Amino acid sequence: MATPAYSRRDLAFQLHEVLHAEALARFPYFQDHDRGSIDLVLDTAGQFAETLLRPLLTELDRREPQLVDGTIRLHPGVRPIIQRFGEDGWISALFPYEEGGQQMPHVVYSAAVFAMQATNYSASVPPFLTLGAANLLRSFAAPALAAAFTPPMYAGQWQGTMALTEPDAGSSLSDITTSAEPTADGYYRMRGQKIYISSGDHDACDNVVHLMLAKIKGGPAGAKGISLFVVPRQRVAQGLPTGLETPADLVSNDVVTAGIYHKLGCKGAPIAHLMIGGADDCRGYLVGEPNKGLSYMFQMMNEARLAVGVSAAAIGTAAYHAALEYARARPQGRPIASRDVAQPQVPIIRHADVKRMLLFQKATMEGALGLLLQCSYYMDVAQVAEGAEKENAELLLDLLMPIAKTYPSEMGVLSTSAAIQVHGGAGYTTDFPVEQFFRESRIHPIHEGTTGIQGLDLLGRKITQHGGRAVGLLLAEMQAAGAAAGAHPELAGLAAQLAKAVGTWQQVTGHLLAVAARDHERFLADATLYLELAGLVVVAWQWLRQATVAQQALPAAHAADQDFYRGKLMAAQYFYEYELVKAPGLAKRLQSANAVTVDMQEAWF
Amino acid sequence: MATPAYSRRDLAFQLHEVLHAEALARFPYFQDHDRGSIDLVLDTAGQFAETLLRPLLTELDRREPQLVDGTIRLHPGVRPIIQRFGEDGWISALFPYEEGGQQMPHVVYSAAVFAMQATNYSASVPPFLTLGAANLLRSFAAPALAAAFTPPMYAGQWQGTMALTEPDAGSSLSDITTSAEPTADGYYRMRGQKIYISSGDHDACDNVVHLMLAKIKGGPAGAKGISLFVVPRQRVAQGLPTGLETPADLVSNDVVTAGIYHKLGCKGAPIAHLMIGGADDCRGYLVGEPNKGLSYMFQMMNEARLAVGVSAAAIGTAAYHAALEYARARPQGRPIASRDVAQPQVPIIRHADVKRMLLFQKATMEGALGLLLQCSYYMDVAQVAEGAEKENAELLLDLLMPIAKTYPSEMGVLSTSAAIQVHGGAGYTTDFPVEQFFRESRIHPIHEGTTGIQGLDLLGRKITQHGGRAVGLLLAEMQAAGAAAGAHPELAGLAAQLAKAVGTWQQVTGHLLAVAARDHERFLADATLYLELAGLVVVAWQWLRQATVAQQALPAAHAADQDFYRGKLMAAQYFYEYELVKAPGLAKRLQSANAVTVDMQEAWF
Repeated sequence: MATPAYSRRDLAFQLHEVLHAEALARFPYFQDHDRGSIDLVLDTAGQFAETLLRPLLTELDRREPQLVDGTIRLHPGVRPIIQRFGEDGWISALFPYEEGGQQMPHVVYSAAVFAMQATNYSASVPPFLTLGAANLLRSFAAPALAAAFTPPMYAGQWQGTMALTEPDAGSSLSDITTSAEPTADGYYRMRGQKIYISSGDHDACDNVVHLMLAKIKGGPAGAKGISLFVVPRQRVAQGLPTGLETPADLVSNDVVTAGIYHKLGCKGAPIAHLMIGGADDCRGYLVGEPNKGLSYMFQMMNEARLAVGVSAAAIGTAAYHAALEYARARPQGRPIASRDVAQPQVPIIRHADVKRMLLFQKATMEGALGLLLQCSYYMDVAQVAEGAEKENAELLLDLLMPIAKTYPSEMGVLSTSAAIQVHGGAGYTTDFPVEQFFRESRIHPIHEGTTGIQGLDLLGRKITQHGGRAVGLLLAEMQAAGAAAGAHPELAGLAAQLAKAVGTWQQVTGHLLAVAARDHERFLADATLYLELAGLVVVAWQWLRQATVAQQALPAAHAADQDFYRGKLMAAQYFYEYELVKAPGLAKRLQSANAVTVDMQEAWF
Repeated sequence: MATPAYSRRDLAFQLHEVLHAEALARFPYFQDHDRGSIDLVLDTAGQFAETLLRPLLTELDRREPQLVDGTIRLHPGVRPIIQRFGEDGWISALFPYEEGGQQMPHVVYSAAVFAMQATNYSASVPPFLTLGAANLLRSFAAPALAAAFTPPMYAGQWQGTMALTEPDAGSSLSDITTSAEPTADGYYRMRGQKIYISSGDHDACDNVVHLMLAKIKGGPAGAKGISLFVVPRQRVAQGLPTGLETPADLVSNDVVTAGIYHKLGCKGAPIAHLMIGGADDCRGYLVGEPNKGLSYMFQMMNEARLAVGVSAAAIGTAAYHAALEYARARPQGRPIASRDVAQPQVPIIRHADVKRMLLFQKATMEGALGLLLQCSYYMDVAQVAEGAEKENAELLLDLLMPIAKTYPSEMGVLSTSAAIQVHGGAGYTTDFPVEQFFRESRIHPIHEGTTGIQGLDLLGRKITQHGGRAVGLLLAEMQAAGAAAGAHPELAGLAAQLAKAVGTWQQVTGHLLAVAARDHERFLADATLYLELAGLVVVAWQWLRQATVAQQALPAAHAADQDFYRGKLMAAQYFYEYELVKAPGLAKRLQSANAVTVDMQEAWF
């Protein structure tokens, strides 16, 4: 596998040169984060990845966790990783100083997570799930409840999960049937089952804390009756944990692991099937108010979806760097212009078709990373700014999130596939890591809302909400990027193409909103394609920003940096020439009167 | 998994209604094959698949072959399958009666193979490799040499292989270094190593017969010095086998299995690393004339590439039928028009986005199957016709082959990926077969010439050879299809779109040929995209043919057939609305003056 699995230079480029992340220090909350401290975070993450995560990349895939005597047994190398995540402060880094955190900006944290996940995605899943669960607790639970559970989670001792999915409720969460019955003792008696629960049980932690959706008996039907509970796998005999317990003080809370799912990839990160309260002895604690569970969950949804995008871009980036390393080292064939067999073979990176495949990976994955860091930056501003600045950042973030989740996920599958193709037959074998990346990438279009769900979210909700203000803000951002690029004659062509693509997107949006007025099903039938079109335009915007910075920096750069900037400029051109060119075809389909997928009948398949 | 893994009705539609395969009986060689006998072949293949192949689908994937004491140990269920392939005549079915064959048309055989491979691809690999090796022997070896090796191959007792690839020679076969030194005893002394040899060694047969490329010492450099040899894994003590040997009569021929490759998919079909003549005691027998090895191999290339296309379409079809079964059975969500949570959930096949994913699979895989059977039909005509009819079939076959190999292979990866997406989280687990199909599909864009190699073959060779006559023939076929469709007002729109797409393709071809005159590297730089464009146009042609038959048959059809024909018409529309619409974007890129991939430099990545 390539060393390292990502470009540290690109992270510096994106954070410092494109986004100017250190400018967040103008907000008091982030005042301690200057360029030096940001680089230190990235370097520390890189060392963590290199020393702890990399050695287990292949191991975790080959030695799958197994369910033994009711507990999922993980590779023994995972427990030290989770503990170090906790001890080094990675689980609580985003939180305020007074909670033991580092008030780290999301944009920096995302870059650090990206570095770790590019090195070993599976190993990073358990601690980042703990972060998500802890964040739900500290945001919405009563202080005493949060204080009872979060300290061992931050410390990497207790695992956190999000327990949403059930056998009959996946995309349709309103159909969950797990029930919660109030008791006189302040807790709820929980009953039901949950499936596909990531890190839902394993022996690399001392306890598991489920943030679980359930319905309080007698409550409203559907989504309006969903509440959020803390349901630990093990509880203390009476009351809440105090933080002084040892594992010996914990007793079963009647959460039983009924099975483990074996899967295509991400094998190091187990997924459990859980039976809740089968012995009628499972206690849950209500988080926040009754019947607000889904709204709490959705307030964390941007973080969760951004995290999926980062994971997908990280895996795709690792595959790209592996393909790049292979293409530089592997001699095969000769230049088309001089095919003399008496000459030695050349490295395959000199063949145009191989460069095309590498540029495809570079353009999609570095473009995706740009978008993800941009969204992380908006997340930071939304968190600490005030007034219009805060509101605008929120609007942009909400609008971009289905794209930031989906574009890296969908392109990650294609990009890891291209990495296999660069390797030829070697890429199909387990002698090289790209087949693992291909398998791992395939989860991302599915979890945290499938691509289909994201399309409905973008077209059916985000485009029109708040009177379309978010779209207006994004268009202004794109115009600004076009104007900045236009200052360089070399980039005028790209700027013009972006403006044209934006026009196409607006035209399509207008067309579809007119359809919405008369037929909601037809309006949303191609929402996935609409999302694809939006992804092309948005990532083209990101590439124009990257190209502008590169063009500006090129003349004064030293030799190695000149190569880097030229690579950026070529990747931007590649994106416009080979990817953005797909926009008119999508637009044509999206404006067609032929509703093939609506009209198709089940019996005709 | 779906029962069955393919549509028997669609095979009848394609063979009888679209291609009229029974009309081949006008040629004396095929005179015994009428509609009844064709159906019998398909039903027999279906039974074979259902009873012998299906039970091992998951097993072969999970219990990977291992190298133990110098021999690759296969699942014990494979030997009976290979033997039955032989005993039932599937290995020699294409060959003349006098060789023990059935003079079966390729078009019928391809359909039968498709049925078997949709049911269990891995299990079918060893016997079909034997067929390919045997065909090389009977076509080019001296009769005595062929007679020595082919009978136990036909019988399913001896495995055949194609031993081409070496560590430093994959796509670039001219760089092989395996050597052959003549001896006074009529055989050659072989030395070298071969990698990625499918079925190169296993314990489900009594011997392995390698059809091996090597260079006779002192011969010309490069491709002109490549000869073809028979190199058995075990030989008789003196001379050639007589067919009367038992396994005990065989001695080692110094072909040693140095390793087995573990891989992403197709795990049931082992791939070996072979050391040839390490003890200086490996005997090879020259096939045909010296230095003609590559030309012999290339005369079999159409069969080999067609076989890859069939495999890819078969796996994609199995994934489609699995997704279809799941989508019909899985309730989730409610119609967009009425989202009342008090109503039960509906099967996901009623959601437009799920129908889109299913139509994508149906349109790409049934379109691919049409093209593959069309090519098989041309193969039959090329084999037995005379004069212009034969020559035209040969030209069309040669032109279409890179497309028939690549389109199913590339779309197979996307199609199996869509099958996973239809399943949601379930599709990522090993509880459903689609993740296996996804892994198995990924080999096809690689073996028997990568997609990049196929693109060079199409644009750099096939388009222009024989003064472009093949393209002219294909255009005439497409015009005829357009005219036939135009007789139905319902299809006039599709016919017009095909004509337009053909025009786009011709324009792109003209542009690129002009580039070729001044810069060969730029001419071929986007050959893979040119191949993609050609694939869209050619499969659109196939869909117009299928739609025309369906439209014609619809009014008089009984109810079940009406559903079938309506499905065909919708799939045709889907193909034009969602796939063919990509042609202008490809054409724009292919005619761009910006040679990004040529100009990109290694140091800039």
